[in-house]
Amino acid sequence: MRKRLSEEDLKEGILSSDRVILSRAITLIESSLSADRLTGDHIINQILAYTGKSLRIGITGVPGVGKSTFIESFGLTLCDMGHKVAVLAVDPSSQKSGGSILGDKTRMERLSNHKNAFIRPSPTGQSLGGVANKTRETLLLCEAAGFDIILIETVGVGQSEVTVKGMVDFFLLLMLAGAGDELQGIKKGIMEMADAVVINKADGENIIASKQAKIEYENALHLFPPSGSGWYPRVLTCSAVKNEGLMNIWEIILEFRNKTKESGYFDHKRQQQNIDWMHESIKNSLLANFFEDGVINKKLKELTQKVIEGLMTPQSAANQLLDFSSKSAK
Amino acid sequence: MRKRLSEEDLKEGILSSDRVILSRAITLIESSLSADRLTGDHIINQILAYTGKSLRIGITGVPGVGKSTFIESFGLTLCDMGHKVAVLAVDPSSQKSGGSILGDKTRMERLSNHKNAFIRPSPTGQSLGGVANKTRETLLLCEAAGFDIILIETVGVGQSEVTVKGMVDFFLLLMLAGAGDELQGIKKGIMEMADAVVINKADGENIIASKQAKIEYENALHLFPPSGSGWYPRVLTCSAVKNEGLMNIWEIILEFRNKTKESGYFDHKRQQQNIDWMHESIKNSLLANFFEDGVINKKLKELTQKVIEGLMTPQSAANQLLDFSSKSAK
Repeated sequence: MRKRLSEEDLKEGILSSDRVILSRAITLIESSLSADRLTGDHIINQILAYTGKSLRIGITGVPGVGKSTFIESFGLTLCDMGHKVAVLAVDPSSQKSGGSILGDKTRMERLSNHKNAFIRPSPTGQSLGGVANKTRETLLLCEAAGFDIILIETVGVGQSEVTVKGMVDFFLLLMLAGAGDELQGIKKGIMEMADAVVINKADGENIIASKQAKIEYENALHLFPPSGSGWYPRVLTCSAVKNEGLMNIWEIILEFRNKTKESGYFDHKRQQQNIDWMHESIKNSLLANFFEDGVINKKLKELTQKVIEGLMTPQSAANQLLDFSSKSAK
Repeated sequence: MRKRLSEEDLKEGILSSDRVILSRAITLIESSLSADRLTGDHIINQILAYTGKSLRIGITGVPGVGKSTFIESFGLTLCDMGHKVAVLAVDPSSQKSGGSILGDKTRMERLSNHKNAFIRPSPTGQSLGGVANKTRETLLLCEAAGFDIILIETVGVGQSEVTVKGMVDFFLLLMLAGAGDELQGIKKGIMEMADAVVINKADGENIIASKQAKIEYENALHLFPPSGSGWYPRVLTCSAVKNEGLMNIWEIILEFRNKTKESGYFDHKRQQQNIDWMHESIKNSLLANFFEDGVINKKLKELTQKVIEGLMTPQSAANQLLDFSSKSAK
């Protein structure tokens, strides 16, 4: 049986970069037991002064684009340079399947065995809001444990990208050169969020098509208004399998960091992300508390029935429910 | 000075299709005075039994696509067939400018002078949620006044389309044939919502390009999974200026209505829209009540400062605020 660690042990373990203790701390914050979560909360607030020093990079792309291979090759390149790299995931599909895009660590066997790397699958059995919260807290724990690059993987399905964009400094979209229709496989809204579009699998017979796709994406990105950062999104090609083009990507990310640090945008954005996170947490908890109340729920069912039968407008039903709630609170 | 009408007068006036009284009732529900809003609420609940019989059609498209001309020509075609047509708008830009996409009635002079038509600009000075609520209530009043076709106009900017889609039976996207890039001018998410894509200005030298665009859109729409209605979105061409192709559009809309009425999708969707409207109203009011509280707001400012200074995680700050709120409520 595992020894139960004190908060002090956990904190010290994290700060001394003990990976086993880091994992245990993450398990605490992912726990559904309120005692565990309270411990997790304490630890995070204690290590807060040691966080914020990493570069946080979001990576997305549709299935088949080679995300795992890219993250493994890119992560290994960074680890070999002496960086400490943590890989996290925000995966809404894990809510249903209980699985996770990073659940199968064998997908990134070489990276997970590297002494400088730490891979943590997406927490399961949570709403997207819940996953986001846990991932943000895990990110802070990893930073306190000395990881200076955090890669956050997600899938190209819309809402999870918005979530990941809200917790990273740099957002990278992986694409493929295909037979036409390149622009259609991914929602345009996601392309608008990208700080860089990277065309993967640019090797062998694919090189010419990849160069062509690069031009097309560059043209397409021109249609977007410049973002608040003043940064114009870049388009790059790489081959994760052949380890080509990865250093270029890293250099672009460093250029982004340097420019936005200088302009103040980098820190401003992180501050804004924290404020947004707080507001989101407030909203989620407020709504959850309201709808979890048994008395409210019973009344809501009654009113829903009236709305369905056309006896009351949805707006009136909402007003009645809130009146009812404020009276029953007294 | 206008005579103040009783609730009974208002109700009778609406049900007898008195346009002046209909306008006054709409003004009541758009009012910022709570007494007016209460009267408005009463009236809506009283006329509820007379609502629901119209066909609700959402119309969107980027500026320049010819929306006003289309709505005027299409509306006149329907009015001349004996239909009673109300035109409403959901226009988030009216929040800022105080103006409205339908504010300038001269844009649709012929339609607004038609005895079967009623045009109402978007309510101003409200959030998108507020505008949506008022428009939904206005729609109900128009139905009770005997309008059997409601056209709801909006602009192609994303969130307002989602809002309009949530209150209509059929969603029509206006597009133009252009020099390439046709698919890029509108967010792909909006195209996914369309039950029909109509290429306007298909006249003169534009006819060939419009036919080409029709094929391109048809191909593009093939990439989307079929919607819950089992309806495959249609692509049509028209010339609003020359009054060509409008009957085709109407026939497609009728086909949609007949098929979805038969399958049960039509009524099921309306029921779901009502339930969604209720939940949205509950959420909006709940959050507004919370954040409007002076004591909560003061505490929120303190906590925000702590988050900005890095003394507390956003999650902990949110937890503290909710604890504080539930204690101060006791």
